[in-house]
Amino acid sequence: MSPEIHFASARELARRVRDRELSAREVVQAHLDRIEAVNPQVNAVVTVEAERALREAARADERLAAGAEPGPLHGLPVAHKDTHATAGIRTTSGSPVFADHVPDTDELVIERMRAAGAIAVGKTNVPEFAAGSHTFNTLFGVTRNPYDLSRSAGGSSGGAAAALACGMHPLADGSDMGGSLRNPASFCNVVGFRPSPGRVPAWPVPAGWATMGVQGPMAREVADVALLLSVLAGPDPRSPIALDTPGGTFAAPLARDPAGLRLAWSPDLGGMVPVDPAVTGVLEPAVKVFTDLGCVVEEACPDLSGADEVFRTLRAWQWELSLGPLLDARPDDIKPSLRENIAAGRALSGADVGRAEVLHTALFHRVRAFFERYDALLLPVSQVPPFEASLEYPGEVAGRPMPDYLEWMRSCFLVSATGCPALSVPAGFTSGGLPVGLQIVGPHRADLAVLRIGHAFEQATGHGLRRPPL
Amino acid sequence: MSPEIHFASARELARRVRDRELSAREVVQAHLDRIEAVNPQVNAVVTVEAERALREAARADERLAAGAEPGPLHGLPVAHKDTHATAGIRTTSGSPVFADHVPDTDELVIERMRAAGAIAVGKTNVPEFAAGSHTFNTLFGVTRNPYDLSRSAGGSSGGAAAALACGMHPLADGSDMGGSLRNPASFCNVVGFRPSPGRVPAWPVPAGWATMGVQGPMAREVADVALLLSVLAGPDPRSPIALDTPGGTFAAPLARDPAGLRLAWSPDLGGMVPVDPAVTGVLEPAVKVFTDLGCVVEEACPDLSGADEVFRTLRAWQWELSLGPLLDARPDDIKPSLRENIAAGRALSGADVGRAEVLHTALFHRVRAFFERYDALLLPVSQVPPFEASLEYPGEVAGRPMPDYLEWMRSCFLVSATGCPALSVPAGFTSGGLPVGLQIVGPHRADLAVLRIGHAFEQATGHGLRRPPL
Repeated sequence: MSPEIHFASARELARRVRDRELSAREVVQAHLDRIEAVNPQVNAVVTVEAERALREAARADERLAAGAEPGPLHGLPVAHKDTHATAGIRTTSGSPVFADHVPDTDELVIERMRAAGAIAVGKTNVPEFAAGSHTFNTLFGVTRNPYDLSRSAGGSSGGAAAALACGMHPLADGSDMGGSLRNPASFCNVVGFRPSPGRVPAWPVPAGWATMGVQGPMAREVADVALLLSVLAGPDPRSPIALDTPGGTFAAPLARDPAGLRLAWSPDLGGMVPVDPAVTGVLEPAVKVFTDLGCVVEEACPDLSGADEVFRTLRAWQWELSLGPLLDARPDDIKPSLRENIAAGRALSGADVGRAEVLHTALFHRVRAFFERYDALLLPVSQVPPFEASLEYPGEVAGRPMPDYLEWMRSCFLVSATGCPALSVPAGFTSGGLPVGLQIVGPHRADLAVLRIGHAFEQATGHGLRRPPL
Repeated sequence: MSPEIHFASARELARRVRDRELSAREVVQAHLDRIEAVNPQVNAVVTVEAERALREAARADERLAAGAEPGPLHGLPVAHKDTHATAGIRTTSGSPVFADHVPDTDELVIERMRAAGAIAVGKTNVPEFAAGSHTFNTLFGVTRNPYDLSRSAGGSSGGAAAALACGMHPLADGSDMGGSLRNPASFCNVVGFRPSPGRVPAWPVPAGWATMGVQGPMAREVADVALLLSVLAGPDPRSPIALDTPGGTFAAPLARDPAGLRLAWSPDLGGMVPVDPAVTGVLEPAVKVFTDLGCVVEEACPDLSGADEVFRTLRAWQWELSLGPLLDARPDDIKPSLRENIAAGRALSGADVGRAEVLHTALFHRVRAFFERYDALLLPVSQVPPFEASLEYPGEVAGRPMPDYLEWMRSCFLVSATGCPALSVPAGFTSGGLPVGLQIVGPHRADLAVLRIGHAFEQATGHGLRRPPL
């Protein structure tokens, strides 16, 4: 087990494999060793396919030796989110209903990663059906925060974030409806990117035109997130909303002088959300870095009114259309909070959904106008630092009681409702040593611009370099 | 009044204005003269802005004389669809509610045409709120078919189609939820193109992500339709679903040898719709042209089951979200058929809308698989030839009774539900001299390919050259 390997960047590892300084087998073995060493403490990777991965690594080495052109992820180990269907590898979605489910077919993001040369080493833990931003389920239990094992790793891409932080793999696929790529990144001191809808085409999905849930990349560094996005993005005829921009666009170098950018900073989304002072205490000084970099930083936030209704209505509606049949067939096998969400979806009228779409559109236009004045919006990712892993959700935030498992995630889900791309990037640690992420939100489809700003912040601060004590 | 001018193509007129063989004033005056001469018989243009148009034409000539670079539509007169907001020009939507409504702002398609140099000469008639495919309303009455004044011009872009056929203007903007660009084109022997959703970004619209209703171009020739599409298409930040392809893509020459294309032909959508034998009698021989052009033509149709529910549910849902407030405020000022549609939207549950989206997605994938075998699908545009203008809708089609004002339009609206681009191109005349259109449907986003196939058909047949007896 070599620390040089398991904490190396994906770009570095891909280069070294390509240049035959390292074999894919060595890279995969190093990460499997790391999983074996630290995963029992964090419970991030819930299915490990060591033999299969090593076989594939051997084939990858053979292909390279035979002169094949390596893909951009050639030989890189990845554990995939357990809600993403992997052909031949158990995919449970954290639900007892799918405890023994082995798909026949990779879903599109997995197909793309595999085609780019990634090697599946297993699956990362999720909340049941990825509902909620704390990763626990009845099949595998809770995923723990690598920086404090008594705390949550966030979710729903919580297994992915914790595994990245621990060096179990250099890249991870996740998904995000209300913050599931961003909050776990914030909690685990890694980078998560919610791309614009259609940027990463999703297939199969029950409602192909829906935009609230997206899939996207996670890594320890922004440039690695961009590398994975370059693989995941680009049009595919299986997604009716796929954006046409080729994925390769995101493989370009991210370095760009941010001087002169106009950035809006809002510590509490214009007063809309309570935020734990420990979070604000980290972010207030962190955003000053942008001033040092020559940006103009002003306190401002777009008017996000209506965003709660947009998100909660469309989320409940989507749960109903996707899981309604399962609720009828196996009600006892769905967790109570999700049963309530599906029931809320069933209680909606068509007019409720219509009203949400009208509000959604009005919100889109208000945010669009806001971004005529600002290049990006800086926000907290999470309203709280990582909370006790034994809780279902934090009962209060900054003294305000939270009525359900969604409410503490508003700093993320209100952003989902805008349709804008949003990055979570490490921004420092609380006095208790818990990670805090900065959320960088950009204009509609300005994914590359957001990654560049995140990269500049990361390069100037280096918070992502602090490894967990494992 | 010169027939050389008023039946010239938009491309020809634009070239002659650009080369100063003709002034914009002459072009606009010739079309205003034509409107004055023939519009009283067909009632296609319901608001005429002659003075304003001539003033703008004079300015256009001055700008050109001063060396300004002319836009692609420089000096071309257009009457805009009366559901499209035109700054300073009355925009009624065919509704008594908006009888005196003069917008402050052009909507996006109008803004783009104006920026390209088009000159607004007035507005074209529509059914109330563009609901239905026969153009009549209480403000302006019925639009008549130029080929038989006792017949319907179709709708909802019926004024546009009739005006084009009569040479009142060379280009027209329309919109299409269930066939409103295609059916009037078919009825009036002109060309109408329903583009892919997002191809022509729409703004303002109440629900920005909705895809069933689209805006698009009409003209007497496919190449003119492509010219207008080159102006209307391309990204705009005001539409969250705008496709990124630049509009200029559609300015490329359309001529391309169709030999070798695999075309599916279905005279009745795989048995799903009744079709008047007079329509089939025109189309059966017409499609043989493709065989002569070297295409492989096979009788085949994708499985469109579920498309009725998709279209009818999402249409009713959209009427509710857009006109529900008006129904409450002024119920007596909305026509009964539309009141029923809005009421149907109100009766929907969120789960009904969800089920429609799930069926919509399944249909998308079946059609996608179909287009892996075929380059395009050939269908009737309309199930009937132009019917009596005094009817609200045809009471029966080929002996099958029609229960409402939508049912006879299934050959168009089932295609809307697929999300595919669809062209209506003149295909000949019934023995009674009534126009019949061929519908050419292409794969998802293959707008240019559809235009090319339509162009090849048009060049080989020339049916669009037969002018109405006015």
